[in-house]
Amino acid sequence: MHPKEQRFKYRENIENGTTSGVCDGYLQANMISLPAKYAFEFLLFCHRNPKPCPVVDVLEAGQVVPRIADADIRTDLPKYRIYKNGDLERETYDLKDVWEDEFVTFLLGCSFTFEKALIEAGISLLHQEMKKVVPMYQTSISCEDAGSFKGEMVVSMRAIKKEELEETILITSKFPHAHGAPVHIGDPAEIGIQDFEQPDYGEFTPFNEDERIPVFWACGVTPQYVGLNAKPEIMITHAPGHMLITDQKE
Amino acid sequence: MHPKEQRFKYRENIENGTTSGVCDGYLQANMISLPAKYAFEFLLFCHRNPKPCPVVDVLEAGQVVPRIADADIRTDLPKYRIYKNGDLERETYDLKDVWEDEFVTFLLGCSFTFEKALIEAGISLLHQEMKKVVPMYQTSISCEDAGSFKGEMVVSMRAIKKEELEETILITSKFPHAHGAPVHIGDPAEIGIQDFEQPDYGEFTPFNEDERIPVFWACGVTPQYVGLNAKPEIMITHAPGHMLITDQKE
Repeated sequence: MHPKEQRFKYRENIENGTTSGVCDGYLQANMISLPAKYAFEFLLFCHRNPKPCPVVDVLEAGQVVPRIADADIRTDLPKYRIYKNGDLERETYDLKDVWEDEFVTFLLGCSFTFEKALIEAGISLLHQEMKKVVPMYQTSISCEDAGSFKGEMVVSMRAIKKEELEETILITSKFPHAHGAPVHIGDPAEIGIQDFEQPDYGEFTPFNEDERIPVFWACGVTPQYVGLNAKPEIMITHAPGHMLITDQKE
Repeated sequence: MHPKEQRFKYRENIENGTTSGVCDGYLQANMISLPAKYAFEFLLFCHRNPKPCPVVDVLEAGQVVPRIADADIRTDLPKYRIYKNGDLERETYDLKDVWEDEFVTFLLGCSFTFEKALIEAGISLLHQEMKKVVPMYQTSISCEDAGSFKGEMVVSMRAIKKEELEETILITSKFPHAHGAPVHIGDPAEIGIQDFEQPDYGEFTPFNEDERIPVFWACGVTPQYVGLNAKPEIMITHAPGHMLITDQKE
């Protein structure tokens, strides 16, 4: 199914589930909308931290149609989150009643894109095999700050077979628009992760330490986490796993 | 001489000439300062047009010390230009009396950086051999616009020996922070240049068309030209050829 048809289902609330595995082969994007007064500092934060915040499109104040999808971002994602002053207020299927002309929207690449490439290369991804949400962790890695946007990087972890490690690094480094190469390999304590079996987001994937090594990538939760640290009056994002399916092939 | 010592001379007005050939081996940068209300759209313009506008540093509102140089940008360039409402008002050696806390400053890479690499590879650059300012032209190549920032790309031209063309492309493509690979090779009319021997900026370098082919790169005049099109109340730039010498090695 072409993304436009799938997005129509979201627009009409015919479906509202996760976009994982939907319209395979098309780029999916994280979405963050903020009042225009935050736009410069947030774009600067993304510019300074391209691994966690790979910008694939920007919609200027009030714009609702991206360049990379013939879509309306207020309606065409399956589910959204609305945050007020840094706290989650509610989830919603439609943004038309909260939308303001001053909102600027950032669309960022996500790791679904490189996961597909890894699978196609025959690399084993435990969280997919176990049907779990990939584990994600807060770390002690400071991002470069920009104005009121600052904080530590959130990472995703995939335990990779030792013999597949080199190819995994090579493949993911070809996707700078989807987080790129890993930021850390090996001991989680070295990046400040205290309880490895209790991820901050997602679900742990137990693995055999003789066979696999943990590999960590910058994760798209980072800009949300950093965004909320700044406590904007309002911030709107996609709900986790409920992304914008674009018209661009991966 | 280390850049910090050279910048001290500019700060104290002991010297104020062109920075071409000065502190060889250190990155030099274009400077554009604008009131904060333009900052988001200008950063977005640079993000969308990385070849003419390769951002190497951004100073947030009121900041005067870059990350890439232990300098004060209000005093440490040899000469500046002040534009009001899109027109050149005056040149000056010091910005302290016009500086406002709301100014945001963008430092962009420049072609001095890749020229050095070409010379070191033994490639013949006519404008250097003839001691002329490199020729630059307005074109019909539209930049991607961002808010009020829009316009056509300005390019620089170097007539390269045919047998040196491939290496020239390879070398300059390694410098995305200094305009990167050429945007056009060959007939100037194809990019809307009407009077090839009368460049819009700089000086024409006559050449033998059997031996050399014109090669065009995105040029740092573009963001100034586009900036002025938007007619901001005030815009401050380095004076042509009078750059910020940074502490970063090329």
